[in-house]
Amino acid sequence: MQKNNIDDRWIRAVTVKTDAPGLKNNTGDVDRLIKAIEKAFPGPIIVPELSLIKEAPALLRKHGYEVDALFYEEEGRRVLFDLRPCHGENPLFGLAVDLGSSTVVVRLVNLLSGEVADETSFLNPQTEIGPDILTRIHYAGKPGGLAELQRLVVDGLNREVYAIARKKGISPSDIAGMALAGNTTMTHLFLGLDPYWLCREPYIPAINAPPLFKASDLGIPIHPEAPVLIFPNVGSYFGGDLIAGILASGMAETEDLSILVDVGTNAEVVLGNRDWLAACAGAAGPALEGGVASMGMMAGPGVIDRVRIDPASQEVTIRTIENKPPVGICGSGLIDLAAQLYLAGMIDLRGKFVADRCGERLRDEDGIHHFVVVRSKDSGSGHDLTLAQTDIDALLRSKAAMYTILTTITNMVNVSMKDVVNFFVAGTFGSYIDPRSAVIIGMLPDLPLERYKPLGNTSLEGATKGLLSKKAVKKIREIRDTITYIELNVNQEFMNLFSAARFIPHTDKSLFPSVQLLK
Amino acid sequence: MQKNNIDDRWIRAVTVKTDAPGLKNNTGDVDRLIKAIEKAFPGPIIVPELSLIKEAPALLRKHGYEVDALFYEEEGRRVLFDLRPCHGENPLFGLAVDLGSSTVVVRLVNLLSGEVADETSFLNPQTEIGPDILTRIHYAGKPGGLAELQRLVVDGLNREVYAIARKKGISPSDIAGMALAGNTTMTHLFLGLDPYWLCREPYIPAINAPPLFKASDLGIPIHPEAPVLIFPNVGSYFGGDLIAGILASGMAETEDLSILVDVGTNAEVVLGNRDWLAACAGAAGPALEGGVASMGMMAGPGVIDRVRIDPASQEVTIRTIENKPPVGICGSGLIDLAAQLYLAGMIDLRGKFVADRCGERLRDEDGIHHFVVVRSKDSGSGHDLTLAQTDIDALLRSKAAMYTILTTITNMVNVSMKDVVNFFVAGTFGSYIDPRSAVIIGMLPDLPLERYKPLGNTSLEGATKGLLSKKAVKKIREIRDTITYIELNVNQEFMNLFSAARFIPHTDKSLFPSVQLLK
Repeated sequence: MQKNNIDDRWIRAVTVKTDAPGLKNNTGDVDRLIKAIEKAFPGPIIVPELSLIKEAPALLRKHGYEVDALFYEEEGRRVLFDLRPCHGENPLFGLAVDLGSSTVVVRLVNLLSGEVADETSFLNPQTEIGPDILTRIHYAGKPGGLAELQRLVVDGLNREVYAIARKKGISPSDIAGMALAGNTTMTHLFLGLDPYWLCREPYIPAINAPPLFKASDLGIPIHPEAPVLIFPNVGSYFGGDLIAGILASGMAETEDLSILVDVGTNAEVVLGNRDWLAACAGAAGPALEGGVASMGMMAGPGVIDRVRIDPASQEVTIRTIENKPPVGICGSGLIDLAAQLYLAGMIDLRGKFVADRCGERLRDEDGIHHFVVVRSKDSGSGHDLTLAQTDIDALLRSKAAMYTILTTITNMVNVSMKDVVNFFVAGTFGSYIDPRSAVIIGMLPDLPLERYKPLGNTSLEGATKGLLSKKAVKKIREIRDTITYIELNVNQEFMNLFSAARFIPHTDKSLFPSVQLLK
Repeated sequence: MQKNNIDDRWIRAVTVKTDAPGLKNNTGDVDRLIKAIEKAFPGPIIVPELSLIKEAPALLRKHGYEVDALFYEEEGRRVLFDLRPCHGENPLFGLAVDLGSSTVVVRLVNLLSGEVADETSFLNPQTEIGPDILTRIHYAGKPGGLAELQRLVVDGLNREVYAIARKKGISPSDIAGMALAGNTTMTHLFLGLDPYWLCREPYIPAINAPPLFKASDLGIPIHPEAPVLIFPNVGSYFGGDLIAGILASGMAETEDLSILVDVGTNAEVVLGNRDWLAACAGAAGPALEGGVASMGMMAGPGVIDRVRIDPASQEVTIRTIENKPPVGICGSGLIDLAAQLYLAGMIDLRGKFVADRCGERLRDEDGIHHFVVVRSKDSGSGHDLTLAQTDIDALLRSKAAMYTILTTITNMVNVSMKDVVNFFVAGTFGSYIDPRSAVIIGMLPDLPLERYKPLGNTSLEGATKGLLSKKAVKKIREIRDTITYIELNVNQEFMNLFSAARFIPHTDKSLFPSVQLLK
């Protein structure tokens, strides 16, 4: 699945020379062109678009019957959708889009070289309707609501497309394809599909595996006939972003056992290899996104992402993003902080502050312990940045949920956590997290640290692969057909596992031998 | 290729019941629907249209997961394009269109029963630009000309669609497909393709075999996603109307040798059977359409279509269409008249009037003999209806061209005219012509009369077959792939044959033994 393997592209420009017409060769222009392509580039049957049929005769004659022909391949056929003069190399781009509910990331990809030409992101304009998905689903039910939600995100994308094209000095019609990955609700809203049944039992998407659409049918101002690949979903709670993640990780192409974890409000977990894939998702709580703690926030300048505490002096050292004065803490910083507090004996295995170890940094507010991480004089906000007992409690619930989901899924498919060769952690969270700290608090299993692999934006990376590669498109289908989605039953057994996992690192210390060595 | 074979339809409505969704079956609505169709109606992969994906969830729930699903089949896939409630039988129609340069015939066909529900025709509104094709091609080259020509015919068709739907009490969206046959130029103008290169050496169509189009892409106000089948052409001078004619005749499905003749300004001839087909076209002159003779006109009320002359009394008896007072003569009437004049000895084998046999009906006008067919007192126009010597001369040139084309094509593929089992005569001309008279003047070969089979509007009939039958669609492709178009070279040999054929019936009387018996 090499990016520069041009034969593996499903959106292609090929240079073809047709025979000149003559009294002995009076085949139609487009038919002659199709024959020439089929001869030079064997493959499925070629179907021409009407707009191309209209342009072909004049263009072929003007350029001596030698042109660049643009086609894309879909199951069982190739759609011929544009012709261009072929002096020198015509630009040919595609868009990979990660359609997040809060952030939309757009990547301009050179379809000839396979390289990323530009990348940009914008706030999903649907957040003006509501930051969370349920608010948007509810809004879609109001008169005109669905259309407005669709328009907001499509308009937002369009502004970005025009800006990128202007910046790179290309025409929007040089963008000949798009691949988009998003969760099931985001994808529904993007396509104008009613999300009503997504959030109501039994949680049924309008469609799991959308066909290719034309850009103009979706109102995207790239080449009007350009194909748009929408990543399929496996259900309401397992979207195309995760399929893209699996694709990006490569876990479905190796015999090694891998786990892919994507942490957000939901923790989504995929386990498997090239032969089988099992997935589940569960509420992990917003603590891991920094969404609950009083000082919590999303990663950004001035946000604490690393904490070290000297066990001897209890001295707290922090690192902030871009080294700006600290203003808050993100999920990965929170995990670091909890791990360091635990190692320094400042919280116990139940996560409770140990007063005589915390010293004067611990204070009582309305009967709740608060630990001052950064004093007002050192903070960017002018206020103390504090961690409340309730923040730690929330974090421990989240980490327990995460570990329980991992335990449950490995138990269900009867594999051992220690056989997991690759442990991929996706998303911004995955990029910032220190796996060592996550193991110390018992959020992630006690595996050799080199098995933990941060992957960054796997949704975007998967979309890029899907845009560039026929094999990847095939793989997407295989992943979808292979995957078994396991519904998490929050039953007694789950609750028992969850309770055991609320301790640091776990009630069963033998599960975390490396943590034992540190205490 | 029976019309009522519902399994042979390529545009179909099928009633399907999907499983109800549940926590154990959380497959997407459209995916579940597609699975149900694939199970009940095995076939190529099914691709859903966006509009259907949008409507499916609500419709499926409203109707208990049982619906009528509309799909059409094209090479390698089936396109699912509408869902309808299934209480009782939903109407389902298609349009078959014969797109003539002067007359457009529209047939409403019931896609369930295969029966013709209505038929209507209108003057091709492009005639306001010019009656002949070359004028229209020229006009298409002017700014906005092509778009205007396309708009004229599409608007004309649309008026007819609305009128038919209103008359039959159906919604235009109940019309789920269309098949259109026309000559190559008419088809180009209908699709908005520049006809510039059609009439310039080497006479190249933009496309021979158009793909299926969507009705909405062509501006036809039937179901917006309905497929439109445009009959393919073999070249500028052998259009989809003739492919439709071959299909309608059935000549490509039997081992019997057949000839299909379509006579207009051009005489188009197809010879062959299910294994091979050879075709040619040549200028036959407008005489056969009634377009030259001073009393000539197209078939219509009051037009003479049969003539008998008593050889003893030289008494002329005529029959007119709808028995209206005579106003002119059509091509078939002209052939009848010439044959009867010849048998009565009133014209000789060169077609010259024999003065002493014609008597007082013959008179001289400006040095040219005129034969009074109908006297002013008996005519519907109040004037004498006369046949000039020049009219007979034109007719003999036309009939000679026809016979020469037939001789040339049979010679070229090395078959004998007498081995022709079926001699199909297409068009209005074919319906009115008396083959006996055509043989007498030596226009058609001297075959047993029962071999001559009038077929009526074969373009419309072929379009109807194409609309109704998957096998017919396959056959259209086979016909196109099989046919060899023979360019008629008007060389010395052709001219020799032509000169010999200008006599009545022919200089070589042995070719017309049955005519010899009559004289």
